[in-house]
Amino acid sequence: MRNRVLLAALLATLAAASTQAQSQWQALPDVAPAPADNPTTAAKVELGKMLYFDPRLSSTGTVSCFSCHNVMEGGDDHMTTSAGVHGQKGGRNAPTVWNAAFHSVQFWDGRAPSLEEQAKGPPVNPIEMGMANLDAVIDRVRHIPGYRPYFEKAFGTGDVVTMANAAKAIAAYERTLITPGSAYDRYVKGDTQAMNAQQVRGMDTFAGVGCTGCHQGAAFNGPALAEGTGFFMKFPAYADSSYVAEYKLVDDPGRASATHDPADRGMWRVPTLRNLEVTAPYMHTGSVKSLPEAVRVMASTQLDRQLSDAEVGDIVAFLGTLNGPFPPQTMPRLPATPGDLLE
Amino acid sequence: MRNRVLLAALLATLAAASTQAQSQWQALPDVAPAPADNPTTAAKVELGKMLYFDPRLSSTGTVSCFSCHNVMEGGDDHMTTSAGVHGQKGGRNAPTVWNAAFHSVQFWDGRAPSLEEQAKGPPVNPIEMGMANLDAVIDRVRHIPGYRPYFEKAFGTGDVVTMANAAKAIAAYERTLITPGSAYDRYVKGDTQAMNAQQVRGMDTFAGVGCTGCHQGAAFNGPALAEGTGFFMKFPAYADSSYVAEYKLVDDPGRASATHDPADRGMWRVPTLRNLEVTAPYMHTGSVKSLPEAVRVMASTQLDRQLSDAEVGDIVAFLGTLNGPFPPQTMPRLPATPGDLLE
Repeated sequence: MRNRVLLAALLATLAAASTQAQSQWQALPDVAPAPADNPTTAAKVELGKMLYFDPRLSSTGTVSCFSCHNVMEGGDDHMTTSAGVHGQKGGRNAPTVWNAAFHSVQFWDGRAPSLEEQAKGPPVNPIEMGMANLDAVIDRVRHIPGYRPYFEKAFGTGDVVTMANAAKAIAAYERTLITPGSAYDRYVKGDTQAMNAQQVRGMDTFAGVGCTGCHQGAAFNGPALAEGTGFFMKFPAYADSSYVAEYKLVDDPGRASATHDPADRGMWRVPTLRNLEVTAPYMHTGSVKSLPEAVRVMASTQLDRQLSDAEVGDIVAFLGTLNGPFPPQTMPRLPATPGDLLE
Repeated sequence: MRNRVLLAALLATLAAASTQAQSQWQALPDVAPAPADNPTTAAKVELGKMLYFDPRLSSTGTVSCFSCHNVMEGGDDHMTTSAGVHGQKGGRNAPTVWNAAFHSVQFWDGRAPSLEEQAKGPPVNPIEMGMANLDAVIDRVRHIPGYRPYFEKAFGTGDVVTMANAAKAIAAYERTLITPGSAYDRYVKGDTQAMNAQQVRGMDTFAGVGCTGCHQGAAFNGPALAEGTGFFMKFPAYADSSYVAEYKLVDDPGRASATHDPADRGMWRVPTLRNLEVTAPYMHTGSVKSLPEAVRVMASTQLDRQLSDAEVGDIVAFLGTLNGPFPPQTMPRLPATPGDLLE
């Protein structure tokens, strides 16, 4: 049975958001916003990149931020759900780190209000990086003497090798992981040759059937909101879609797992659609394997629509215009390990 | 009890090698040698780097060549022995990939005659990357369509997405992972300011006490030999050294585990000493945690000498001149994953 009260509320929200969205297609900014207390600097980015790639921040010495958020590909892993220390599997599909800087909250359930707070989560998650606590994480960093000069360069002298600064550096690096300049961005900025006829048709269909109700704005993850706000939607909205059981879409309580508020059950942060072609499999479950199927699932569960194959093809063609380019990156050099750091 | 027959044979070998070595300090070549059937090309290196970083070549999708041979640091991991799929631990300390191109055989026991053959080992080792067989490995690669253009660029058209070509590409990439231009190299080429007085004293002590008996040549891993030959030495040679029990140096049969020849028991490929400062912990066991202790252990077990603290300090200072520089590398971009590749 459909929950008609919730549905009515949802549709009202969608309608309000939709009006705003369809009036404007936005290109991705060339620079990601940064909070006042953590302006992005080259020294922070350099340190943050080192920490991001460093598996020594995990209990086993095998898992880094990079392990599940692979910036050499889609910014995620390639699995249904990620593998952490001791081969344990997480409960949700890894969100991409590319353009995460344009989310106003982090994690699928929005439980972190910033990239800085997000960075402190996985290291102490027992099935991700498995450290006992954040003190243990920064103790590892302090035990690698080569890190200190990089902290001092980024944060000055004194007691600067702190978890707060490590998180700031990682967040600063992540704010460089953005992909403006896609075909869509060039099209929106006036290059009418940047998208072909099918892609433009797909763009119209995407808006016309109502995808922009949620997937609006420069990152296609909702309206621009102050950091910490969060743009959440009910998913699935149409719980009697046959896809709900097929792809196990209601087993996870979503945002309610973070807030413990029953009203948040089934509420999820709206994910970005940028670079979607390279982030399969899909949904918080990772249970939907292909992009055309993901489009069908979303149309059915969120819009109560069964799209034609032609409509699906056009929308998928449009979504392809949201790819990259990924900024070229040099590999960091990590400071040497004392021989007694890990077994 | 000392095995005096083996010892006499060993000393004769050392003496012969030592005469050759002490007559010449060699700088590392600027280019690594490549076999006639796999000349190094930019296209192979590009593809090889992608494959090297790709965890999708492991059963769990979590372990790549890079996992245990981290080219962002010492070319190894930072552990006593490495961690493979399902958190399993290997039996030996990971050798560095830096300058592996200058070894005439690969692995601690020399069981692979080339980098190409070495590359086919870890993917199908059940406690490393855990794939069922090499066909399964290349099937994974074939299932990622974005790889084909890179194979064609490197190897031409037709049936080129093969395990043999994948191994050739990885080997070609590894032949770029060399570190000429260290302080030692510059000193040997005539820059007398490149090493300080203690480092020069350590160089003399290093040769004088007999380290060059084994650690000679440009990579400090023995004389230049044809690919596939191998330069092996007995370790420990002086089995009554107290370090043998302390660091468990005789539990592993060494080369005999590959050849099943009892005469190869305790025989090991002589490792390179380049970049030793950044590859702790030490020995095939990974049981020796610091470089000064490693110097003491080797002097005792191989030369039956107890070095003074001053001698150890000087040798360690000299070994520091064998560091890097590591060539700057751009990160590869990995082709996108079909959503059904892995759970």
